[in-house]
Amino acid sequence: MRKVAVTGIGQTIVGEHWELSLRELAGEAISQALRDAERDNVDGLFVGNMLSGMISQQENLGTSISDWAGLRGCEAVKVESACGSGGAALRAAIMAVASGEMESALAVGVEKMTEVRSSEVTASLATAADADYEIAHGLSFVALNALVMRRYIHEYGWKHTDFATFSINAHANACHNTYARLHEPITLEDYQQARMVADPINLLDASPVGDGAAALLVVPADYARRNGSRGIAIVGSAAASDTLAIHDRKDPLWLSAAASSAANAYSQAGLQPADIDLFELHDAFSIMSALSLEACGFAARGQAVRLALEGEITINGRIPICTLGGLKARGHPVGATGIYQIVELVQQLRGEAGAAQVPGARIGMAQNIGGSGASVITHILSRN
Amino acid sequence: MRKVAVTGIGQTIVGEHWELSLRELAGEAISQALRDAERDNVDGLFVGNMLSGMISQQENLGTSISDWAGLRGCEAVKVESACGSGGAALRAAIMAVASGEMESALAVGVEKMTEVRSSEVTASLATAADADYEIAHGLSFVALNALVMRRYIHEYGWKHTDFATFSINAHANACHNTYARLHEPITLEDYQQARMVADPINLLDASPVGDGAAALLVVPADYARRNGSRGIAIVGSAAASDTLAIHDRKDPLWLSAAASSAANAYSQAGLQPADIDLFELHDAFSIMSALSLEACGFAARGQAVRLALEGEITINGRIPICTLGGLKARGHPVGATGIYQIVELVQQLRGEAGAAQVPGARIGMAQNIGGSGASVITHILSRN
Repeated sequence: MRKVAVTGIGQTIVGEHWELSLRELAGEAISQALRDAERDNVDGLFVGNMLSGMISQQENLGTSISDWAGLRGCEAVKVESACGSGGAALRAAIMAVASGEMESALAVGVEKMTEVRSSEVTASLATAADADYEIAHGLSFVALNALVMRRYIHEYGWKHTDFATFSINAHANACHNTYARLHEPITLEDYQQARMVADPINLLDASPVGDGAAALLVVPADYARRNGSRGIAIVGSAAASDTLAIHDRKDPLWLSAAASSAANAYSQAGLQPADIDLFELHDAFSIMSALSLEACGFAARGQAVRLALEGEITINGRIPICTLGGLKARGHPVGATGIYQIVELVQQLRGEAGAAQVPGARIGMAQNIGGSGASVITHILSRN
Repeated sequence: MRKVAVTGIGQTIVGEHWELSLRELAGEAISQALRDAERDNVDGLFVGNMLSGMISQQENLGTSISDWAGLRGCEAVKVESACGSGGAALRAAIMAVASGEMESALAVGVEKMTEVRSSEVTASLATAADADYEIAHGLSFVALNALVMRRYIHEYGWKHTDFATFSINAHANACHNTYARLHEPITLEDYQQARMVADPINLLDASPVGDGAAALLVVPADYARRNGSRGIAIVGSAAASDTLAIHDRKDPLWLSAAASSAANAYSQAGLQPADIDLFELHDAFSIMSALSLEACGFAARGQAVRLALEGEITINGRIPICTLGGLKARGHPVGATGIYQIVELVQQLRGEAGAAQVPGARIGMAQNIGGSGASVITHILSRN
């Protein structure tokens, strides 16, 4: 399996793009990524998306986008893994290039969520959980995560307010990201006074939905090397699944798919958690930040909250997370999120993250999660 | 890129499975495929499906199925390319194994369509076409194909009744397929008297929807060789896209993505149309049979209807098609169809097709189409 690298990135602002369709959003990110890589064509297009059929009445989404983006003729498919769709699309692009089947592939994440009523968005997002055994009983996706957060608080003795640091960090970092949805710093008091969504998850524990698209160009690593230094190598890529329903897990506080996909990615890269300079994790809810940090070996079980409270997750901390805002403040256009994470890693590893730059970042990790830990995709990228 | 083979197949009857959920249907096909290959686990699962979110309120479908089918932990995603989703899922499985990333992968196609009102099915299927520029104007998917059929009749001077042979052949062959939805032979009179759906497409030009699942186990070809003779080699695999909307094509009667994916598959296999012993084509409507035969080099433009009238598409003809019923009579559970096609090819190449056996079949081709020729996936399989 030959090694691959990312040589082009593109992204739109995450927000309410009522004037742009799915393909127009995706086309904008694709144009940027191709311009960034100084190319005008590719062999294949892998689109990460969750909701296009339900919200925009458009499937055959791969072809819809290849057609619009000036890539008529190329192989094009949609890859779906709920909120992990972006990471899964990148996995598909990597395998296509690594196998030798393609010399170049675009991984594009795109989602439109703000044009329909919020009740429709809630219903659509619930399809990430188990329709027959969770959602049929009246649970929403945020309610499922609320049950997990309550259990964590119960097991480990933290207070709800101890989670504030995750959200404060994400909002602070997003202020430096032009493409982020939210640019307002928040305080501990803001967090404590935030409106409740599903107890104990309040509005500042939850990531906002949004419309957005992001794109990555994947090529063979040796091609990238021959063509200048902007290529960022993908040194680890792994995915795993868990039970779809949380109640089927022996331990609802252990993300086994996050742990096993991270372990495989570490092993491929010959690295350990201590080698990772920044970690773009899947903070759909603040509880997920804690569980991901623990599953990936950055904190002992029940201790990720302490890591945050001790300031170790900030740009200058031991393991910076959500360095350009994370899902919490960059925004969470669900099927696109996994690609935004990697675009941001590349910005950091190129040293182009501006005021949010992690000093001397050489190796970064991203983890994208579909459902409540049901499908997890982990990538490790390296500057050289 | 290492070569791969299919060593296990499984399928459910195509029909109305009101008592089975998506994952139960898929689980049944997976169990059969694993039993057939004498295995009990795989590294990855690629699910071809189009409508699970819209009809069954279930995304994260890969994990839903890996969880249910006893494959917890393995990488699992859904691949969507409208009615070409099955073929696209097989492509993903092939690239995963060919790249060396996996030693085994299941490609599973599954669809449930009969539990909702037919108006909902029609609306869901319309998402295969261009939502903004075709469907918004009131066209349904069958209406789009009707426009193409009318154009073909106008350009080449055939009569509607000349297309009857495609449907008669499919129905005759399905009588020998236990898993087919329809087991009634039809006559020329039946065809001529069939109820109109969208002029000139009548009920016997159109494939029936249905619930169903089919599965394939893909492994490295050398592994298959070491483990007995039942492995069927995949010697060609290619995909391409066209414009999503038919009106954007220079020639609405030329399936350019079918032609280019077939040309690539022939080239990979070192074969020509004359070498193909049978062709499982995408006869969603009888007009699509004609256009596929022409795009793939089995008939000159406008002459596929003559090929059919001369009896060359039957089991004993020059290029047998729809040998176990095709979409027309085996049924068309849209996202599953591309996998059914390959399962049937394997049955033929193993010599296990019973009364529908193509004598001496060694090399077979399958072509799966998403939308009206917008995304096309072509595979060539060989007995040795």
